[in-house]
Amino acid sequence: MRQYIYGKNTVIESLKGNKPVYEVYMMKNLKDDKLLSLIQSKNAKVTFVTQKNVLNDLVGSVAHQGIVAQVEGYGYSSVKEILASIPKGKQPLLLMLDGLEDPHNLGAILRTSDAIGVDGVIIGKNRSVGLTSTVAKVSTGAIDHVKVAQVTNLSRTLEDLKKQGFWVVGCDLHESKDYREIDYNMPLVVVIGSEGFGISRLVKSHCDMNVILPMVGHVTSLNASVATAVILYQVFNSRHPL
Amino acid sequence: MRQYIYGKNTVIESLKGNKPVYEVYMMKNLKDDKLLSLIQSKNAKVTFVTQKNVLNDLVGSVAHQGIVAQVEGYGYSSVKEILASIPKGKQPLLLMLDGLEDPHNLGAILRTSDAIGVDGVIIGKNRSVGLTSTVAKVSTGAIDHVKVAQVTNLSRTLEDLKKQGFWVVGCDLHESKDYREIDYNMPLVVVIGSEGFGISRLVKSHCDMNVILPMVGHVTSLNASVATAVILYQVFNSRHPL
Repeated sequence: MRQYIYGKNTVIESLKGNKPVYEVYMMKNLKDDKLLSLIQSKNAKVTFVTQKNVLNDLVGSVAHQGIVAQVEGYGYSSVKEILASIPKGKQPLLLMLDGLEDPHNLGAILRTSDAIGVDGVIIGKNRSVGLTSTVAKVSTGAIDHVKVAQVTNLSRTLEDLKKQGFWVVGCDLHESKDYREIDYNMPLVVVIGSEGFGISRLVKSHCDMNVILPMVGHVTSLNASVATAVILYQVFNSRHPL
Repeated sequence: MRQYIYGKNTVIESLKGNKPVYEVYMMKNLKDDKLLSLIQSKNAKVTFVTQKNVLNDLVGSVAHQGIVAQVEGYGYSSVKEILASIPKGKQPLLLMLDGLEDPHNLGAILRTSDAIGVDGVIIGKNRSVGLTSTVAKVSTGAIDHVKVAQVTNLSRTLEDLKKQGFWVVGCDLHESKDYREIDYNMPLVVVIGSEGFGISRLVKSHCDMNVILPMVGHVTSLNASVATAVILYQVFNSRHPL
């Protein structure tokens, strides 16, 4: 399924990526040789426009920065495909997002996931935000590199993964340990809850451990993409000490 | 100066806070005793509305969740006031944001700053995003607890702070050390650059050290609020070891 993506970095990353780019629409004043040769190398059609409105018609009044591309849609992987893609000898690391709703959070989380080498992200089919063009833009290209699986039943997926040797660490306020106390050096699924409601009851029942970030101020939680990043860097650091 | 804020958590936090709340506008169906008694305790006027449009007229088509309040505007502190407010015996920690533009990033950063005990945030007057109602909403109340100073000249401010014994750590890609190599146990200013351009040249010239987060994937940077949080938690952890 084709879809539109927008924003300079997003379009450039997609031109450098493996998936088809069918057409690039850009403001005439953005014309530059490097970009044009990238578009050519991809055999994409290019259309120059002089009116911002033409781009707004394609993607809405978003921060498209004068450039939009029609690309092959973001495909999902299966959990099986994610597991098969993990290099031999690498300690597997999966991230499960339970009910995340904000595309900005998902985009930022994909970006962090790419940065620290998460092998795959698992999201639910209901309520959760999926792979949209806003997610693509915010991810600054990470969406093309991080495998995402969409499953109907998160807790059944956790059961299966546990049978295959994974440990499940939930990020939850209740009955939790300081996130620095845990040894993350094992096949791991890190579970992050939704912005408003945290981890759902059934999914929580599958967590082997719950961790919490120390907080000494007045707020009782952090932004979901922020909390995810702090935990993921802790996992990365414990696996790659200085 | 009065201003409107919106969103359930933001309004509730502000009703619990110290600053005046003049009036609360809410959808009739949101009426609940706890909220009403909070409003009463604050001597705020309450207006029930049946049409979402009435609220849209006040704050625009944003995710106001059916509740808007008119409050005393978010005041800035001076750097001097921030310094004077640091408890005796506490290792000072300031955060400088050099050209940050996205209100979602600023809101998330204030939330993290409150969580780990940043003493004050310093932002520039030009280009940078200031304290708006979107920042307030995203900060989930942290805006009422974290002191923010707006200065005309960031590099002169750094000079002054250095004379007062502060060390300056920039978060920058060039000539940088792994962020885990640094001892953060001194009076510190952490400097974060803008989303698009990083730290400006003059400000960078005042950084005593530059740090970088390890990244093993394809993206070359992280979301600004995410990178800030990972660094700030490292500072917190080095000051509060397990």
